[in-house]
Amino acid sequence: MTKDRALAPGARIGIIGGGQLGRMLALAAARLGLSCHIFSPGEGEPAFEVAAQFTIAPYDDEPALARFAASVDVITYEFENIPAATAEFLQKLKPVRPSPRVLALTQDRLVEKDFISKLGIGVAPYAQVDDAGALARAVGRIGRPSILKTRRFGYDGKGQTTIKEGADLAVAFRSLGNQPSILEGFVPFAMEVSVVAARGLDGEFLAWDVGENVHDNHILDTTTVPARMSPDLLRRAAEKAQKIAEALDYVGVLAVEMFLVGQTLVVNEIAPRVHNSGHWTLDGSVTSQFEQHIRAVCGFPLGSTRAHGPVVMRNLIGDDINDWRELLRQPGACLHLYGKSEARPGRKMGHVTFLKA
Amino acid sequence: MTKDRALAPGARIGIIGGGQLGRMLALAAARLGLSCHIFSPGEGEPAFEVAAQFTIAPYDDEPALARFAASVDVITYEFENIPAATAEFLQKLKPVRPSPRVLALTQDRLVEKDFISKLGIGVAPYAQVDDAGALARAVGRIGRPSILKTRRFGYDGKGQTTIKEGADLAVAFRSLGNQPSILEGFVPFAMEVSVVAARGLDGEFLAWDVGENVHDNHILDTTTVPARMSPDLLRRAAEKAQKIAEALDYVGVLAVEMFLVGQTLVVNEIAPRVHNSGHWTLDGSVTSQFEQHIRAVCGFPLGSTRAHGPVVMRNLIGDDINDWRELLRQPGACLHLYGKSEARPGRKMGHVTFLKA
Repeated sequence: MTKDRALAPGARIGIIGGGQLGRMLALAAARLGLSCHIFSPGEGEPAFEVAAQFTIAPYDDEPALARFAASVDVITYEFENIPAATAEFLQKLKPVRPSPRVLALTQDRLVEKDFISKLGIGVAPYAQVDDAGALARAVGRIGRPSILKTRRFGYDGKGQTTIKEGADLAVAFRSLGNQPSILEGFVPFAMEVSVVAARGLDGEFLAWDVGENVHDNHILDTTTVPARMSPDLLRRAAEKAQKIAEALDYVGVLAVEMFLVGQTLVVNEIAPRVHNSGHWTLDGSVTSQFEQHIRAVCGFPLGSTRAHGPVVMRNLIGDDINDWRELLRQPGACLHLYGKSEARPGRKMGHVTFLKA
Repeated sequence: MTKDRALAPGARIGIIGGGQLGRMLALAAARLGLSCHIFSPGEGEPAFEVAAQFTIAPYDDEPALARFAASVDVITYEFENIPAATAEFLQKLKPVRPSPRVLALTQDRLVEKDFISKLGIGVAPYAQVDDAGALARAVGRIGRPSILKTRRFGYDGKGQTTIKEGADLAVAFRSLGNQPSILEGFVPFAMEVSVVAARGLDGEFLAWDVGENVHDNHILDTTTVPARMSPDLLRRAAEKAQKIAEALDYVGVLAVEMFLVGQTLVVNEIAPRVHNSGHWTLDGSVTSQFEQHIRAVCGFPLGSTRAHGPVVMRNLIGDDINDWRELLRQPGACLHLYGKSEARPGRKMGHVTFLKA
């Protein structure tokens, strides 16, 4: 049954989004003898250069979307902030994996939190905030400091603001554009971790070792693998990710971000895609997250997630890229640059994985 | 001094040849934020799909070569059988690495053997054969069985014939097209090995672990790393490769094929390029041979050649590719397919690397 839906080498994969994740997905697809067609509204995207085909068009250009779908065998995406209507339109023409249902769920922080809670998995306290009055009530219940986040289209710290003592709630709500939001309680975590894992078309589930993440200015700075937690906590983290993947009937790679609070793991969010905290798998594991995602969406068997040894991945943000020559010189350092011409502050320009001998 | 000649991320690399080696070079370049322009006389080559740019033109199309050179920062090649005139024409326009001098030397088996011998490195007994009379004299000296090979344009067993007892020498010489040839003595080897290594623009030399090669019908079947030889022999093999690389003032990755005869290593041939017996480095080493070649020709520092552990690489020839799904299922197997549509007998369709846990 599964085999009917599986592709074979020579197939073409449609990828929505042409950034570094799309680029690394296309490179992984090429290793398996597959070609890619990138769809993106942006000009000069990093993935274009390594794909057989690309289309530059807005997400609501239905004729362009239809031509894109006709040229490929399966469609996936590099990030979750694409319009639900786009994914639904495409799904009528070709398989979209992970499914548009997953996309819709993870695009909305409130829907996502409700979904996770109902699985019996712990999350930070949260409340729906549709107006300044609701914000006041939510702050009354959850307390300060807490974090106000738009329900949709936030990433890397964008679309959020901290509610500290004395903060004016109306100003805070306005600063996010008076959008439907949620208030989240501040979690006094000892550690941030993520489970990057994959689920195949046949339901097979495999996780990589848990990564310990350090953020700097809301952007991932380093991932250390394995995370410095007890074996029991590492096992429980992977189990939570599996529970989520199965409840979503997920196909592909996903990342589940969690906070360690005491001996409890609290899920922060689900990324329905390859994830920055899984970049170390390119050099540090038998199968990379990019190849695994391609395998999963094509209906291929999953590959081994065994790590070669302990690793540290560090992002190169903005001017960090100027260290490229020094990094190339370090024994055991594997450098990845994304081919972006301009090193703007906060822009992810590349990453480096340090493999311990 | 070296730095003046070095490139930086964002540079474009010209690659002559669009087969699987060009494809894997282009994929490695992309990891480092570099783009590629492939030049090939053939249509639909595997490397085209993963390169920013490609040109289809004959090797003697000087306007096309000039446009190719103008679009890139450095030029390299995926195989040695390109006309010397092409390399020399390009060298006037952009750096060609490894140099056209290396290309000329390794294109001619007689010149190559003379060069290696003069370094004091052992080779099989050989003799120049320009006509059937010279062949008779050479067989008189070297004996039978021996192997008659054209001096130029041979690979994977093409352009060679074995001179057995009773073989008609005139027929043998004619069977290779009456071309300038050499006769090589048959070497009763215990093992075939290859040293894959790189030399940087600044003269730095780094070799990977020695590979033990098994051929089937003149085509590489498996490479096992490390080769099952004594530490002393492994060291001596690497030293021979270094001596050759330094004598050539080599820049890039090269492979030196050797026979183990008793406790002696006899050099068979030099491949001035990334080599099939180094494919295991994609999955089994900190730095792959493809990335290392790109680093070297760009004037970047070389990367660590440390292996993650013992590996076996197996080529997928012709119909072997039909096993792809079974291979994807094997734990520790890393599959590479080259995107070739037709699986002809003897055609290299992909390879698989088995990483031992």
